[in-house]
Amino acid sequence: MRNMTEEELTQLVLDGYSNTDNPRLREILLSLIKHLHEFVRDVQLTEPEWIEGIKYITAAGQISDDKRQEVILFSDLLGISSLVNMISAKVPEGATESTVIGPFFLENAPERAWGESVAKREIGDPMIIRGKVTGMNGEPVPNARIDVWQTDANGMYDVQDSNAPEHNLRGYYRTNERGEYLIKTVRPTSYPIPVDGPAGDLVRAAKRHPWRPAHVHAMITADKYQTLITHIFDGEDQYLDSDVVFAVKESLIHDFRMNESEADAKSFGVNAPFLDLEQNFILPKQRVAA
Amino acid sequence: MRNMTEEELTQLVLDGYSNTDNPRLREILLSLIKHLHEFVRDVQLTEPEWIEGIKYITAAGQISDDKRQEVILFSDLLGISSLVNMISAKVPEGATESTVIGPFFLENAPERAWGESVAKREIGDPMIIRGKVTGMNGEPVPNARIDVWQTDANGMYDVQDSNAPEHNLRGYYRTNERGEYLIKTVRPTSYPIPVDGPAGDLVRAAKRHPWRPAHVHAMITADKYQTLITHIFDGEDQYLDSDVVFAVKESLIHDFRMNESEADAKSFGVNAPFLDLEQNFILPKQRVAA
Repeated sequence: MRNMTEEELTQLVLDGYSNTDNPRLREILLSLIKHLHEFVRDVQLTEPEWIEGIKYITAAGQISDDKRQEVILFSDLLGISSLVNMISAKVPEGATESTVIGPFFLENAPERAWGESVAKREIGDPMIIRGKVTGMNGEPVPNARIDVWQTDANGMYDVQDSNAPEHNLRGYYRTNERGEYLIKTVRPTSYPIPVDGPAGDLVRAAKRHPWRPAHVHAMITADKYQTLITHIFDGEDQYLDSDVVFAVKESLIHDFRMNESEADAKSFGVNAPFLDLEQNFILPKQRVAA
Repeated sequence: MRNMTEEELTQLVLDGYSNTDNPRLREILLSLIKHLHEFVRDVQLTEPEWIEGIKYITAAGQISDDKRQEVILFSDLLGISSLVNMISAKVPEGATESTVIGPFFLENAPERAWGESVAKREIGDPMIIRGKVTGMNGEPVPNARIDVWQTDANGMYDVQDSNAPEHNLRGYYRTNERGEYLIKTVRPTSYPIPVDGPAGDLVRAAKRHPWRPAHVHAMITADKYQTLITHIFDGEDQYLDSDVVFAVKESLIHDFRMNESEADAKSFGVNAPFLDLEQNFILPKQRVAA
């Protein structure tokens, strides 16, 4: 055991974790060890490079707080988040597709009343998003919770913008007894991911642009249905084909239509003209645990 | 690009980093992406599992500070540090072998004078470590810096022990003009890695014991020679064959001999009996950059 080859060391480490109680955790740990050791061997990682990596991961943890999650951002930038989403959040044909949660979701966002806007200052183009939450058979889902969060017209989330009103462009709505919802907001903008931390170093080193195409984040939660974490992308955005975090799916791209009808505006409690998006969220039933 | 298979996503991410300027960083990033994606696919990682991993990594960064490095500890526990050491710090036959640096090294430890002890309280068995720093041809290396750090008789490093004198059992010596050094200390003890953070969760989940065999850390730095980071293990320790961080090498295990000679004690400025270890550090010349 004391004079080992590289392969013997890897096997010794694998053996060290073979008594992990939880079989799923054991499977994950053994695979993680195997792949990380292969990575180290493949590139013949040196100690100075290893310590750079250690510093990078440490810095990502340390810059994270209750308003910023740099480790998620790092996972997003390496396409890991999108891959996990693709593997893990598969939905049946006909259900609304999911995508990554991103680093800006907050627990404890405030509830928004029917007809209330999440936009707490007037600097963007007014927009409504409306429709139904239904199951796969078209049945309405009443009292579903729809969390939304997005950038303002200045390209910043509330948590990045010290001038923004609290919880600006963030909050959750409930569907009514017919499964209908009405979100009032402003048009989201494309924006650069935060580049003042380790993630920024990565983007610059790779000569990538830091932009994400404009989108509204939505998370839909309802009893007995699978939780849906998704984006509503603006179909006119220039970054749809080069999203820095690889999270665009075709079915999530929408046409934000200009609605000039005074009657429609009046019925939704907004001023014409306004951007009008009709979008149903279709949720599969929750899988029953075996 | 927008409706992708898992394999197409991985390729898209790899393409995203193919313009990385620094060719070595590009090689490392592309391999890291490839292996992490393979890991995610192999275990079919779910979003809840992914978020657990994110929280774990974030917590490891956040519990780290100028006295504690949990990300290194995590790397140590997964055998990554030892593997990197094995790959990257190879030395020619005859040179002193290296091992991992571990999470307790501190920059800015104090210099210790010839004859001074790094033990700043009297709770362990007195020990000296003495010998020469030489090159591969036996030439003495004067003015080499020998950093040492180790646990006290209570199993704690200074940074873990609020009752310890500052920099207890930590500091650096210099070799004299004949390449000789004299370290005064106490016998190190085996100790559990810190288990009050994320690393502890991992060790418990894997049902591993948290112990490291007793050792003195040493780092030897000298102009024109390769820096050596190593351990001096106590040959009587019960954990030599089950080091929790997989860092034992046979050549680093030593017999801590009891020396009862009053004359020897007097010549080293200690009281008899004392533990007496003679150990030469043999350093290869620094590789000249091409």
